[in-house]
Amino acid sequence: MTSASRRVTQRDIARLAGVSQATVSLVLNNRSDADVRIAPETRERVLQAIADTGYVADPVARRLASRFNRIIGVFTYEPAFPSGTRDFYHPFLLGIEEYAERVGCDLLLFTSAPVVDGRRRVFHQDNRLRLADGCILLGREIDGTELRRLNADGFPYVAVGRRDDAGGPVPYVGADYAEAVGQLVRMSLAHGHRRLAYLSVGLDAESSADRYRGFQEHAAGAESARHIPGTGQEPDTLLDDLHADRATVVFVEDFAYAVALELAARRRGLAVPGDLSIVTLGDPTVAVPSDVAFTGFHIPREEMGRQAVRMLADLVDGGATGVHQRLLPCEPVEGETLGPPNPAVDRS
Amino acid sequence: MTSASRRVTQRDIARLAGVSQATVSLVLNNRSDADVRIAPETRERVLQAIADTGYVADPVARRLASRFNRIIGVFTYEPAFPSGTRDFYHPFLLGIEEYAERVGCDLLLFTSAPVVDGRRRVFHQDNRLRLADGCILLGREIDGTELRRLNADGFPYVAVGRRDDAGGPVPYVGADYAEAVGQLVRMSLAHGHRRLAYLSVGLDAESSADRYRGFQEHAAGAESARHIPGTGQEPDTLLDDLHADRATVVFVEDFAYAVALELAARRRGLAVPGDLSIVTLGDPTVAVPSDVAFTGFHIPREEMGRQAVRMLADLVDGGATGVHQRLLPCEPVEGETLGPPNPAVDRS
Repeated sequence: MTSASRRVTQRDIARLAGVSQATVSLVLNNRSDADVRIAPETRERVLQAIADTGYVADPVARRLASRFNRIIGVFTYEPAFPSGTRDFYHPFLLGIEEYAERVGCDLLLFTSAPVVDGRRRVFHQDNRLRLADGCILLGREIDGTELRRLNADGFPYVAVGRRDDAGGPVPYVGADYAEAVGQLVRMSLAHGHRRLAYLSVGLDAESSADRYRGFQEHAAGAESARHIPGTGQEPDTLLDDLHADRATVVFVEDFAYAVALELAARRRGLAVPGDLSIVTLGDPTVAVPSDVAFTGFHIPREEMGRQAVRMLADLVDGGATGVHQRLLPCEPVEGETLGPPNPAVDRS
Repeated sequence: MTSASRRVTQRDIARLAGVSQATVSLVLNNRSDADVRIAPETRERVLQAIADTGYVADPVARRLASRFNRIIGVFTYEPAFPSGTRDFYHPFLLGIEEYAERVGCDLLLFTSAPVVDGRRRVFHQDNRLRLADGCILLGREIDGTELRRLNADGFPYVAVGRRDDAGGPVPYVGADYAEAVGQLVRMSLAHGHRRLAYLSVGLDAESSADRYRGFQEHAAGAESARHIPGTGQEPDTLLDDLHADRATVVFVEDFAYAVALELAARRRGLAVPGDLSIVTLGDPTVAVPSDVAFTGFHIPREEMGRQAVRMLADLVDGGATGVHQRLLPCEPVEGETLGPPNPAVDRS
């Protein structure tokens, strides 16, 4: 009746049997309500059309009958494929794709989400979140209002990166920045540093707060542990500032700034780490042009992506209980920019 | 009855009204077949539950009623986010995402497709293609059998890159490699080169065939235009070969090989382009570590991605007619590796 190559749809079955698609659906799902009766001849006609055509249920249709669509939504607040050379999302997406493949799910990127004030919105008039069984949220700063609404809706989601509670605990797979920074502080103290400085990027994000918390907690025993908020000052001005403060080690949240600072230090004849140790709290293994091996830590972005999908799959299944929050350890990167302070320099 | 924040589903309506989901669907779509009768009280109960809950149709459900889901499928034969440093798909995906955003579509990456012989398959037992309204195919080599089946099924799709017919014309947005290579050949002839060599990668792909066709057609007036198939020989062996052949310019399909060849030439004291001009037919603007500015052309990958989505949207709409095949021009990259042959060198 139909050629083997053309895919048969429920619509075709309905047309062939001369009934509505809903009727086909009722027959397919073998439903018979007290309120809806299907004439036996009608049922027979539908079954015959199915047999004639070799119809196989459409996955979309199947989702309505079964529970899951095997689609994992991926929401990024900015384009997932940015045009800049530094590709922020790529390692996360690599891990997400790998695990999605493993669990046999497709990935749905919500590129249709409208952009408001330069950022996409999860919730909008034509909310398409439910096309997916659950959603992975990616972004340095995630809107608290949207997290609260996701929690209220009970829609399965997992944030990549730790998030503060938003009307309830937020399921996440993050990196343990506090511990990673703490470890670098302990290493500095062990090297003999007593006057520390911390240069933040001035972002109101959990990833920034966690790093600074790790610094504060572990620098408690130092003589000085000054916080310099990211005010966009020139590296040279900062070097003057650090010198006036007699700081011998600076913790720099943004890797690109650490690169600029090291260059400025070298230009004025300062030895790194002899005269000044520079530790980066970004990821020195991510490609920013620099011929210097910076001391810092590696953020397990790929693994965060993989585990976020794994956690989401658990949440969608509904089998898992308890709070879903996981912090992965960051691998230290030894580098060459942290060493003992120069005892020959009189900094008093 | 239900809280405003929780999203109401067709399932909820069915439960509240005490009927099946198919019945809800019949009521929603206002169908009344001769063969399926809905008791007026039942219909009333369903409508009341809809009014009580403020139910809004789910987009998946809506697709079954309306024609489009506003989902564009993206099929890559290998992972879309490869772990290598050279990210083949990224510029294409950038363009695809940009245009999808513009037309308000989400992107579905078919990561659930099973991998056979190291490559994903479009068609398999649990074919999920129809979750999307249409599909973009990405990959250097696309399986002809799968293209034939897509054509036979009448499923809207667009290939990125020119493809030979497969049971009918294949809709594509490609790059005009024949013309780009032809232009480089004409430039070489204008510089005075008469003995040309062509080093292919030995891939059985349209993109390779088009490049070689451009070479052949335009090198017709040369004294010699030799084709050296990519046999994986060492750059040094190839240099000997070119020397024996008295070739003064070599067209290298693979950019990484052009980089290796230039290095080998420099090591043996050959001047490029003085002693040997090296032209690359890959994309010298894509990051491969090299401090040499190669002559070649830029492949408009982003624009190919954008236009593929645009073409697909036209195909899905069904308004457009005719064959959908478009080749975009490649921008020449002047570089410094093509120049006049050295007249002082006796190559006879």
